[in-house]
Amino acid sequence: MLYRTSLAALLAATTAIAPLHATPTQGSGVAWDIVEGITTEIGPRPAGSPAEARARAWGKAKLEALGFKGVAIDEFKTSAWQRGEEHARLTAPYAQPLAITALGNSVPTPAQGLEGELVYFPTLDALRAAPEGSLKGRIAFVDHAMRRAQDGSGYGPYGDVRREGPGIASQKGAAGIVIRSAGTDSHRNPHTGATRFPEGIVPIPSGAVANPDADLIARIAARGKPMRIALTLLGKPNPQAPSGNVIGELPGRDPSLPKIVVACHLDSWDLGTGAIDDAAGCAIVTAAALQASRGGQLLRTVRVLWAGNEEMGSGDGGADNYARVHGAEKHALAMESDFGADRVWQVTLRLAEANKPLGDRIKAALWPMGVVPHPGMADGGADVGPIIARQNLAVIDLGQDGTHYFDLHHTPDDTLDKVDPAALQQNVDAWAAVLGIVANEPGEIVPVPASTPGE
Amino acid sequence: MLYRTSLAALLAATTAIAPLHATPTQGSGVAWDIVEGITTEIGPRPAGSPAEARARAWGKAKLEALGFKGVAIDEFKTSAWQRGEEHARLTAPYAQPLAITALGNSVPTPAQGLEGELVYFPTLDALRAAPEGSLKGRIAFVDHAMRRAQDGSGYGPYGDVRREGPGIASQKGAAGIVIRSAGTDSHRNPHTGATRFPEGIVPIPSGAVANPDADLIARIAARGKPMRIALTLLGKPNPQAPSGNVIGELPGRDPSLPKIVVACHLDSWDLGTGAIDDAAGCAIVTAAALQASRGGQLLRTVRVLWAGNEEMGSGDGGADNYARVHGAEKHALAMESDFGADRVWQVTLRLAEANKPLGDRIKAALWPMGVVPHPGMADGGADVGPIIARQNLAVIDLGQDGTHYFDLHHTPDDTLDKVDPAALQQNVDAWAAVLGIVANEPGEIVPVPASTPGE
Repeated sequence: MLYRTSLAALLAATTAIAPLHATPTQGSGVAWDIVEGITTEIGPRPAGSPAEARARAWGKAKLEALGFKGVAIDEFKTSAWQRGEEHARLTAPYAQPLAITALGNSVPTPAQGLEGELVYFPTLDALRAAPEGSLKGRIAFVDHAMRRAQDGSGYGPYGDVRREGPGIASQKGAAGIVIRSAGTDSHRNPHTGATRFPEGIVPIPSGAVANPDADLIARIAARGKPMRIALTLLGKPNPQAPSGNVIGELPGRDPSLPKIVVACHLDSWDLGTGAIDDAAGCAIVTAAALQASRGGQLLRTVRVLWAGNEEMGSGDGGADNYARVHGAEKHALAMESDFGADRVWQVTLRLAEANKPLGDRIKAALWPMGVVPHPGMADGGADVGPIIARQNLAVIDLGQDGTHYFDLHHTPDDTLDKVDPAALQQNVDAWAAVLGIVANEPGEIVPVPASTPGE
Repeated sequence: MLYRTSLAALLAATTAIAPLHATPTQGSGVAWDIVEGITTEIGPRPAGSPAEARARAWGKAKLEALGFKGVAIDEFKTSAWQRGEEHARLTAPYAQPLAITALGNSVPTPAQGLEGELVYFPTLDALRAAPEGSLKGRIAFVDHAMRRAQDGSGYGPYGDVRREGPGIASQKGAAGIVIRSAGTDSHRNPHTGATRFPEGIVPIPSGAVANPDADLIARIAARGKPMRIALTLLGKPNPQAPSGNVIGELPGRDPSLPKIVVACHLDSWDLGTGAIDDAAGCAIVTAAALQASRGGQLLRTVRVLWAGNEEMGSGDGGADNYARVHGAEKHALAMESDFGADRVWQVTLRLAEANKPLGDRIKAALWPMGVVPHPGMADGGADVGPIIARQNLAVIDLGQDGTHYFDLHHTPDDTLDKVDPAALQQNVDAWAAVLGIVANEPGEIVPVPASTPGE
């Protein structure tokens, strides 16, 4: 519809009241201010970029202003990746532009692009079953069927299309690969994210198309007509890039007790402004530490870690650097917030049988907030994995509702408007309740033995 | 979150069943086949483009295959517009990329772009109030507060930011203008659409940013810090471009009776594949004409018009050409479907008092489908406006639910997955019910007198 000139316009014009300003969602409080500040004043901050460095300076100033002690930036070098020009279109059997983005660790096509047959695989298993050499000179397309799940568990198997697909396609001789985005939305915003090329496998240009574009490719494949694609993806690895962790502490009354580390990551993918991944996490852990100590200084020191380079998963990121630099300091427990800004609905523990009373107090504190216990084993996540592994730490996971997380994850749509201030505050409340308990625990906090099934 | 390596993955891997293929929404029937076919086999088809010509050939073949008679393409020349490279970023006070698209009828920036101060106006009225010359060398930003409405009426006043804003900014001396998209979603997909520069006003580069980007600009403006933007918009007018209308008929038993014309438009904006705007409209009117005649040949001839160039609103588009070429043929009534693919919920008539029994039969037929009468006056819309004006025709508007129409309108997100097959069929059923009544009406079908308030 262009414009109905007569009645509708007349009716609308007589009822419209000019607003003084647009009214986007606004929150308040420490957590909101952090998410709003990072997304507004920094924006996209890919690992190893000048924007990530600006974010570190911003974070250091913010933690100092909030009263954290010992605020410091631990600088390190990291394996990053630099996006370049990127576009693609089907050239046969129908001319159709595609909404595409390169995957982290992709290598560039020639500047003028690649053009070749696009071979449809409905699943990663179908790609695995392709004969060696059968993709020589061709470009693989791998489809999948990821759907929304509250616990986000679809990201495990369906995310493997992104993580493993490019390496497998390369082994089969492919000149490039395009995958259906590892995402659950229906917007023309493809999902980026890092892929991995195992040692000895030649990296190939690797991209993801948006779900509606993958639907289009699937419909054309179903017609049985050969497809061709023109593919330009000029992103390339950026090794030895500067990154850093920002840390700060609320010192405990008894500094001799092992500390509690609460983590998030400061880097983001470049397509959005990293509101839910993971400015929200930094906002939640930081605001919760302050809120937990509102009633008086906590017994144990709580350290916040705003980690650099989480997204590349390169083994030399912020979490790895933290374990290396701070691995000699005694920690009791690690927690991470890195799954968006929606409400906490589930708590999972990794506590020894001796800590059952502690665990029960945590569960009891969370019940009134709508948080149910999960019988499995907490793992902490990428931002704290290395320090947990190094020191065999106790872990508490506060599981956020991830139903819509993969609608936004690693897309241009990861922006502030997706953060619900009320849900953000529920996170802070849940985290503060847990920190108030564990950071005031005088007894030993110990994990289940390392040999327990599940770890 | 990068990837929780242990428990979540383990759990997920054990429960995942590899699907044989992805399962995007699929419909069936004539209407679905038309929307699916146009979006899959043609895709974006901007006015005056080779893709629009391919769509005409596709449409002609389709109407012939469906049994329409006298299928023809009426070719004409039209004022079109050609998109070019487009990108923008804030350079101060914070470096932030912006999701932007040019508006139709925009003129190009220099190839290397413009860079200048971005001046924030909360409303179109605020821009109107700016002193003459006050924007010299600057770039205007105009915000607004469009919200979802079932009848889409917000597009009247808020759409004026797009239609009139650029001309007003030019009058104030602006070097360019950026507006908040005339849209109701929160995705990084800006909404394009035609703007108008009145006679004597110098056209300027004109673009729209996505709503999250407009929110960002509003937040920065609220901080009171001067903003600067680097703006590259290379789209330009494409005058005298080839377009055409596709027409076809189901001949009536009495060819001497004035015919009924049911219209849609075949062109689309280039960002999406024009599923809801307006492949769905062509699908609905065409399938409904066939469905209405399923019980036997209709009394009056029903002509379908798949119009070329509706989107540029240039006064020399498909609707204008139809009235010029076919203005001597006797029509009784015109109807248009050009407001998406969601359910019909409202019917509005333009029928003389003498036709009250006819109107009552139409309303009674629609009641069981959840369609309520609207007391106002039907206007038909852009695709049939000129023939209605020329012949003073009776009109029936079947109002679709537009709550989410402006989430998708003129964006990359206008793709097949947004069409609900059940809602599409409800449209066909409602249209077929109305066509079955009006095309079998032996008596005169007359509009209210031209002088009646509302027209």
